[in-house]
Amino acid sequence: MDKWLNVRSLVNADALDEIYRYEVFEDYYRFYPKTVVDHAMTNEKWIMIPEELKSLYQMVGRTTPLVRAYRLEKKLKTTNRIYLKREDLLCNGSFKITSALPQAYYGALQGKQKVITETGAGQTGVAAALAAQLNGMHCQVFMVRSSYQVKKLRRTQMEVYGAQVIPSPSEATSVGRSLLSKGEMNGSIANATSEVLEQIDQDQSSFNIAGSLFDFVLTYNTVIGLEVIQQLEKVKIHPDFVVGCVGGGSSFGGFALPLLDHYGHERTQYVCTESGSIPTLTQGTYDFDYPDGEGKSNRLLMYSLGYDFKPPSMHASGLRYHAASPLLSYFVHHGAIQPVAYDETLAMKSAIDFSRTEGIVASPESCYTIHAITELCKHHEDRNIIAMITGNGSLDLESYGHFL
Amino acid sequence: MDKWLNVRSLVNADALDEIYRYEVFEDYYRFYPKTVVDHAMTNEKWIMIPEELKSLYQMVGRTTPLVRAYRLEKKLKTTNRIYLKREDLLCNGSFKITSALPQAYYGALQGKQKVITETGAGQTGVAAALAAQLNGMHCQVFMVRSSYQVKKLRRTQMEVYGAQVIPSPSEATSVGRSLLSKGEMNGSIANATSEVLEQIDQDQSSFNIAGSLFDFVLTYNTVIGLEVIQQLEKVKIHPDFVVGCVGGGSSFGGFALPLLDHYGHERTQYVCTESGSIPTLTQGTYDFDYPDGEGKSNRLLMYSLGYDFKPPSMHASGLRYHAASPLLSYFVHHGAIQPVAYDETLAMKSAIDFSRTEGIVASPESCYTIHAITELCKHHEDRNIIAMITGNGSLDLESYGHFL
Repeated sequence: MDKWLNVRSLVNADALDEIYRYEVFEDYYRFYPKTVVDHAMTNEKWIMIPEELKSLYQMVGRTTPLVRAYRLEKKLKTTNRIYLKREDLLCNGSFKITSALPQAYYGALQGKQKVITETGAGQTGVAAALAAQLNGMHCQVFMVRSSYQVKKLRRTQMEVYGAQVIPSPSEATSVGRSLLSKGEMNGSIANATSEVLEQIDQDQSSFNIAGSLFDFVLTYNTVIGLEVIQQLEKVKIHPDFVVGCVGGGSSFGGFALPLLDHYGHERTQYVCTESGSIPTLTQGTYDFDYPDGEGKSNRLLMYSLGYDFKPPSMHASGLRYHAASPLLSYFVHHGAIQPVAYDETLAMKSAIDFSRTEGIVASPESCYTIHAITELCKHHEDRNIIAMITGNGSLDLESYGHFL
Repeated sequence: MDKWLNVRSLVNADALDEIYRYEVFEDYYRFYPKTVVDHAMTNEKWIMIPEELKSLYQMVGRTTPLVRAYRLEKKLKTTNRIYLKREDLLCNGSFKITSALPQAYYGALQGKQKVITETGAGQTGVAAALAAQLNGMHCQVFMVRSSYQVKKLRRTQMEVYGAQVIPSPSEATSVGRSLLSKGEMNGSIANATSEVLEQIDQDQSSFNIAGSLFDFVLTYNTVIGLEVIQQLEKVKIHPDFVVGCVGGGSSFGGFALPLLDHYGHERTQYVCTESGSIPTLTQGTYDFDYPDGEGKSNRLLMYSLGYDFKPPSMHASGLRYHAASPLLSYFVHHGAIQPVAYDETLAMKSAIDFSRTEGIVASPESCYTIHAITELCKHHEDRNIIAMITGNGSLDLESYGHFL
């Protein structure tokens, strides 16, 4: 791929102004590399990918394959043709490296020496650790303490990639010490983010790698969708359904928005799946709300269950977020993208059947996508369904174990 | 790939007669599918791969990529060109599915209904479980009890693929009950094999999937090496070094023997790495010995440390075997293949550096291969090094943790 599609260019200037009415993009310079912030503000349609980044993309496993799931089709007794975009084959195990690499690259280019980032179950941290390492930088990951204790293998994966992993709340920051003194031992992604921002504020050579939500994250992830367009055109396939899962929306945005731009939404339908326990897009409110969990940052126009909504514990921790990307929300609000919500048990059941049919153990988040494919096949015939497997589930096998 | 290279055809008839002087191939019919046994006995050079199997190979991820490791080259400051055969990208996580699929396929074709197999750390069991599932059969895996308790995620992976996993020694067989009554709680692969054979003897609809050692396993794995030849010819590369690791020898046999047949061993060198703690090929004796651990089966002409050698506990459990494939041993004995042995600590150190350079977390067995690449680069320049990563190390991250 030669360039990213800037997802902001898909929305007109007035709408963008409204969505970001309260946002102060200049504040981003404190925490993100200069070029990344430039990309967060530009409305240019295409952004060139530097040659070195293209090599890095190739090295981690891009272009990922788009494969036809013949056996799944047979199992579902469907006349639909199912194609899977295999982001699970990237060397870190998920799509996350796709946006982490450019962020690390631009940080290094600017002379920064250290990535400091937060992670819940670990996929964002793993990608940040590898991206930092491949760009010759140190990496410090504040990992939500409850996950730090349970998701040991993900922690080790970050350490293998050279990162220092710190359980959050930690003794390293004043906000961490304050939380610990109040007996807060589990931590949360909001707390970990606060620790990260405090650290970066004190060390000008450091910066944050964002894992979701921001437009620039979606933009960097558009290589996924742009690859799919090339792959579909090569075999002369027109997509009828484009299916993925949504937590913050960074994988689905990167996957679906280039297709939405290319194919429109007359002949092609875009279906994003969320958890029935966190029904942001299906039952949330489209209004201004805080992207953080404490009401401290600037409000964005997006679907939200309320910034004080506490997402319940669930296996697909990547879906645990109270809101969804403002741009993705915009397209849902305007009817270009259809959200659906599914129950975890149904999703995991479909995913286990899928493992037995296609041999792929998908990440818990993608289990919702797999269930959506199953549902689509009940109601449609002779269509082309293009779905994304966002990551592999090797390190989530314990979650599978609960449903066997 | 259209056909397998029968590895037996690479050795002349007199030598084969000598190697298998005490073997009674007809006994195999009790435990293996008819066509598999036919393949174990034929000397025909090529065996056609049935169309359905070709589809199954494609489905699980074959052809696997051969990628150039530019960053590793740079890190090692070498003028050598390093190519990696990525067997870690197969959907079960290792090369093992390559020989498990045809065994399951031929079993199903013959009307068999159940695979019963043994596994240590689980890679063989995972491949057998998936192969059985994809061919519509039940699968029962006797897993060495000590691994059953420690390698929980591999056990879950087998269960996700639909297998029933039983800790061995078990109450299910008389040999298991006898061992348990004597207080044997850890189990061993030899004990698990005994349980499997007892079960199969009692159920004519069942059969075993072999994971290593047998010529037919190497033959089925030759798609690996045959793919590499095609991939090298496409970019007009002549291999100078072919590098892999050896436990029983099934991955290296399938990888290296087609190249040995195609390129000879004048201009190309074949290097197989083993563990310094189990130096079968470097320090063992080339003579007749028992392939099992109890001296019950027929003796084979091969390198061995003695059938009663007890392999020490180590992270690369796939290398824990007292002997090596008779055919591989033959080529080592005749100087066509060079064995080397490395210390575990050195291998793991090279592998961690490799993860940080290429982003790939390799299986513990392949860590020895990675170390061999490093060593070759110290002594050679401007050569083409072709090495195989046999599997991914996601579920072995705990082993990595010990060396961080």
